[in-house]
Amino acid sequence: MHLPMVIGDYTDFYAGYHHAYAVGVMFRGPENALQPNYTHLPVGYHGRASSIVVSGTPVRRPVGQILQDPKADPKRPTVAPTQRLDIELELGCFISKSNPLGQPVGIDEAEEHVFGYVLLNDWSARDIQAWEYVPLGPFNGKNFATTISPWVVLADALEPFRTKGIENPTPVQEYLKEKKEATVYDIHLEVDLTTPEGNTSTVAKTNGKNLMWSFPQMIAHHTLGGCPLRPGDLLGSGTISGPVPEQSGSLLELSEGGKREFQLSGGNETRTFLKDGDTVTLRGFCVGEAGGRVGFGECTGRVQG
Amino acid sequence: MHLPMVIGDYTDFYAGYHHAYAVGVMFRGPENALQPNYTHLPVGYHGRASSIVVSGTPVRRPVGQILQDPKADPKRPTVAPTQRLDIELELGCFISKSNPLGQPVGIDEAEEHVFGYVLLNDWSARDIQAWEYVPLGPFNGKNFATTISPWVVLADALEPFRTKGIENPTPVQEYLKEKKEATVYDIHLEVDLTTPEGNTSTVAKTNGKNLMWSFPQMIAHHTLGGCPLRPGDLLGSGTISGPVPEQSGSLLELSEGGKREFQLSGGNETRTFLKDGDTVTLRGFCVGEAGGRVGFGECTGRVQG
Repeated sequence: MHLPMVIGDYTDFYAGYHHAYAVGVMFRGPENALQPNYTHLPVGYHGRASSIVVSGTPVRRPVGQILQDPKADPKRPTVAPTQRLDIELELGCFISKSNPLGQPVGIDEAEEHVFGYVLLNDWSARDIQAWEYVPLGPFNGKNFATTISPWVVLADALEPFRTKGIENPTPVQEYLKEKKEATVYDIHLEVDLTTPEGNTSTVAKTNGKNLMWSFPQMIAHHTLGGCPLRPGDLLGSGTISGPVPEQSGSLLELSEGGKREFQLSGGNETRTFLKDGDTVTLRGFCVGEAGGRVGFGECTGRVQG
Repeated sequence: MHLPMVIGDYTDFYAGYHHAYAVGVMFRGPENALQPNYTHLPVGYHGRASSIVVSGTPVRRPVGQILQDPKADPKRPTVAPTQRLDIELELGCFISKSNPLGQPVGIDEAEEHVFGYVLLNDWSARDIQAWEYVPLGPFNGKNFATTISPWVVLADALEPFRTKGIENPTPVQEYLKEKKEATVYDIHLEVDLTTPEGNTSTVAKTNGKNLMWSFPQMIAHHTLGGCPLRPGDLLGSGTISGPVPEQSGSLLELSEGGKREFQLSGGNETRTFLKDGDTVTLRGFCVGEAGGRVGFGECTGRVQG
């Protein structure tokens, strides 16, 4: 199997409201959980295209600089394999139509630029990320692997599953205003964790409707200043979580920042973050009223030490 | 003219010590000017490859979300053309040899992965950037245009101009330790600003030796966790400034955060940031002991409103 398209640029957004809120509470408390810009624009960053791999590709546990004791003064990082290897359950959106440099894509035309959707696992090394990311954002904590499912589900196939996303309490700027109310999709999303011994647990179930920004809004914002998107470019939604821990799109949330071990089914095993030999599989499907079903296939990867 | 290579991924570092320090003083004061990680690793972020253009391409002033009054509560951004359009004088480094996913490039082998160098102007919209960049880094404040010079100066041609960079007060990790002492290059760098009326001023002069991290160190760090670099990938050094304002690689420093108007030569005109119709030209050259000269050509762009 191979990647479904040649990916020029990869951009990762942060449009999953419950994930952004939960992570914000963890690091800044409930008062300041969301940054002031969060409800005004779809926050995103440029990711790494060269390390995007197709489902089934093994994921090597990355080595990186890690601050074992964040309170030490002076701070003394060590170089070691990550001890906080995590996943991020996302939807990926492939672009099919380009806009020239300097010409934004209007919100009403944005859908015409979408080819289709895949499942995306934005593997993350939380300890590497925590030390490196100030002030310019995630780097080696993310660029070691991003897995996508091999089959692109065409945008048209998802039309029957349109639904409303998370309501935005802030009136948005004109360039982000959509005519439709149902701007995201009702997609059942699941995270399976299989231990080295072969025991599989479904550790989380969530839904594609847990987004506060739609892909058309992401496209309108991304191109507002004139940035060109090209066919094959990939946009990630950001981690899609529901409001409770069992609906987490990341282990960071499921383990409450690594403080709580969660139970795997069919045994006494627990996890906070991933162990060598663990396999993570994302699954996604839509179920129609008449029983029709659209499946995303699998997005899977096994951790190598 | 066209880009010298097909650019897969673009990464921008922050290795210019004086720039990082000056900007840090501006936003956090002298005590906390440098973030704790700055002397431990070459901080960098993933940039946008699709908006890299060759010298001579006009640069459209980007529209974006801007917080006109950062102290207002609640914060109310507006959508407008940037009023703080800036440049960043950098060196760009083209990769010629790939490393496979999961296999880091050792510091002693890093030079073999370098094809050569160009001048790079990382155009920046400071007001857009200030509002958007927390917590995931610069996005629309940077992705509207990055200009590079059209001729790649081969690494071999720069060998006679090796010199020591800015001394790092912190002992670095093993994977960043270089055998050579002279790891950067003595390159004279200049910034010219030409007004719409055609008056040209050289507004800054600096030097390639003002880097605290070398390109081999950037490569070793970038690949530490296994991120693959591919032929044609581009690394930016980060803004190269000297210790005094006349050696600034950005107008942010030259205008002390927009607070001080600097004088242009041959008239009464001043600037803080760029006006429509301004042309910025970066130039770079090395001068050998026997008078031999290696030139980078020009890296130029005119601002369109």
